[in-house]
Amino acid sequence: MFENKNRIPLSDFGEFKLIDHLTKNFSITQKTTIKGVGDDSAVLKLDKGLTVISTDLLIEGIHFDLSYMPLKHLGYKAVVVNLSDIFAMNAIPNQITVSIAVSNRFNIDSLEELYSGISLACKNFKVDLIGGDTSSSVQGLTISITALGQVEKEKVTYRSGSNSNDILMVSGDLGGAYMGLQVLEREKAVFKVNPQSQPDLSKYSYCVERQLKPESRIDIIDLFNKLKIIPTAMIDISDGLSSEIIHLSKSSKLGCIIYEEKIPIDQEAKNTAEEFKFNSTTAALNGGEDYELLFTIKQEDYEKIKNNNLVSAIGYMTDETSGCFMQNNLNQKIKLEAQGWKSF
Amino acid sequence: MFENKNRIPLSDFGEFKLIDHLTKNFSITQKTTIKGVGDDSAVLKLDKGLTVISTDLLIEGIHFDLSYMPLKHLGYKAVVVNLSDIFAMNAIPNQITVSIAVSNRFNIDSLEELYSGISLACKNFKVDLIGGDTSSSVQGLTISITALGQVEKEKVTYRSGSNSNDILMVSGDLGGAYMGLQVLEREKAVFKVNPQSQPDLSKYSYCVERQLKPESRIDIIDLFNKLKIIPTAMIDISDGLSSEIIHLSKSSKLGCIIYEEKIPIDQEAKNTAEEFKFNSTTAALNGGEDYELLFTIKQEDYEKIKNNNLVSAIGYMTDETSGCFMQNNLNQKIKLEAQGWKSF
Repeated sequence: MFENKNRIPLSDFGEFKLIDHLTKNFSITQKTTIKGVGDDSAVLKLDKGLTVISTDLLIEGIHFDLSYMPLKHLGYKAVVVNLSDIFAMNAIPNQITVSIAVSNRFNIDSLEELYSGISLACKNFKVDLIGGDTSSSVQGLTISITALGQVEKEKVTYRSGSNSNDILMVSGDLGGAYMGLQVLEREKAVFKVNPQSQPDLSKYSYCVERQLKPESRIDIIDLFNKLKIIPTAMIDISDGLSSEIIHLSKSSKLGCIIYEEKIPIDQEAKNTAEEFKFNSTTAALNGGEDYELLFTIKQEDYEKIKNNNLVSAIGYMTDETSGCFMQNNLNQKIKLEAQGWKSF
Repeated sequence: MFENKNRIPLSDFGEFKLIDHLTKNFSITQKTTIKGVGDDSAVLKLDKGLTVISTDLLIEGIHFDLSYMPLKHLGYKAVVVNLSDIFAMNAIPNQITVSIAVSNRFNIDSLEELYSGISLACKNFKVDLIGGDTSSSVQGLTISITALGQVEKEKVTYRSGSNSNDILMVSGDLGGAYMGLQVLEREKAVFKVNPQSQPDLSKYSYCVERQLKPESRIDIIDLFNKLKIIPTAMIDISDGLSSEIIHLSKSSKLGCIIYEEKIPIDQEAKNTAEEFKFNSTTAALNGGEDYELLFTIKQEDYEKIKNNNLVSAIGYMTDETSGCFMQNNLNQKIKLEAQGWKSF
């Protein structure tokens, strides 16, 4: 798909010229960035509060499929996924580094597409691209991103800070990204049989966008600041609600109860799940890639946030010996298990 | 080489359990590290001076060959290579993140070997492993490392700070790692023809060690501190002296002249080069992977350092229009060209 002999081959660029070429339109906007791309290391002035750092490695064929993932979207998503881990600390991201390894199947145009998505994410989330590495690969595309953020010492939010009776809340809605993946996988299978098929994805547009172009929730961090709420614990939902609830509960040495009827699921995700004969609650619990935030707040903070439509209360924390359960729509208590997506 | 059906397959570990298992013996030693592995992000308190950050992506079959690179050495080298970029800023490294992607050819024992090398490097250079990501790969091993360091604002050293007439110096000796690679490649070829062959590498031990277990030059940063010297410019020598001299000169908008007779080359590297009918100066200029430091100092600082046997003066900076040249042992002036190792 990227082979075009008329285009500039990557071998015409040395490692340094390639990174210079790909990053030439990126500008430095953060006052904490002293020096970006172009020396042995980037240089930052991080002299206030705490610094948070998170890193992700994305491998073609494991984490993404270029047969339905446009490269610009991939670049955007790769950044967003990483920033989500910064927001999960109640921090604001300021810088990223991006390293890529590409096989000879890629040319400069395809890398420019990838970097246009990275650039858009940098712009939307106000982060500086400050460094990285480019290299060839034996097979496929590999992307490694590291993000840095800052947070005031009093506001940093770990997975471990929750207390019994804290309210368990989630941003946005869940299960959409997983149903979007099912739609894309089905269209890929149809395309293999009939390459002339013209898929009409309009009735799945929300789910497909959740899969291909997720956003991460800077607006929730802004909301906490506006409402003067510091969550007692927080984690981002990358592997499905169930798995993340268990992580947060274990880290906080607590149990919890959530209510199936309270789990926010978009109507289109519900309709799509029905069409695929799939339980939409299962998509929310185990689907993954929603990049929403799961957090707990003190009971006394609930009044401030309960009417905000960006977030939903789904349950509350209990003591550790109680375990983690969901009360379903038939009033049965079901033990939550970590069946989230595994990369092994 | 890593296939052993009796060993624990990686699929028995989830992503989180695997990273927990591999990092369980790593301890936090730096007072700037508040929280390491185990949350959405690591948390650091970097409230003094400047922070420097560098990242490298290493791909099996491109950057390393496991047929002669033991995994423990690879883990060690992967860290050292990254720290070298921190030292090149005149900074001291404090933290690293390590992400790996591995194919099903690897088992838990092989990853423990890799991490034992990472652990040794962390210990020797006093850096904390604070985070990372583990994933499967379609093919081979990929390692992504990001290193963070700190430096006082007055001491940070860029490639761009050199001035005309500054002395150009280099640490250690050059070309050894490249000659070590030639020895290992030859033994690999011999082994393919005769798997019973028992290579005697004792006469190449220095060069082979330079290739398999390089060190990075924290001692030179200590020396600068001791002698109260702040280099005017610095870069680490990963791609060969010639390429790095050109980077430093271009960044500083200068030219330079170096003297072939002044380039430090170990006697064993010279002997090995002779055996391979290879010019040892060419190995030093274009070989790469020596991870020594190339730096410039003011003339007035030369007295303080000239008798130290860790470093050698190899030339001096000139104005930009003069270009970069080497005066060879036949008194000819040869233009330096960037023929360093390219990953494309």
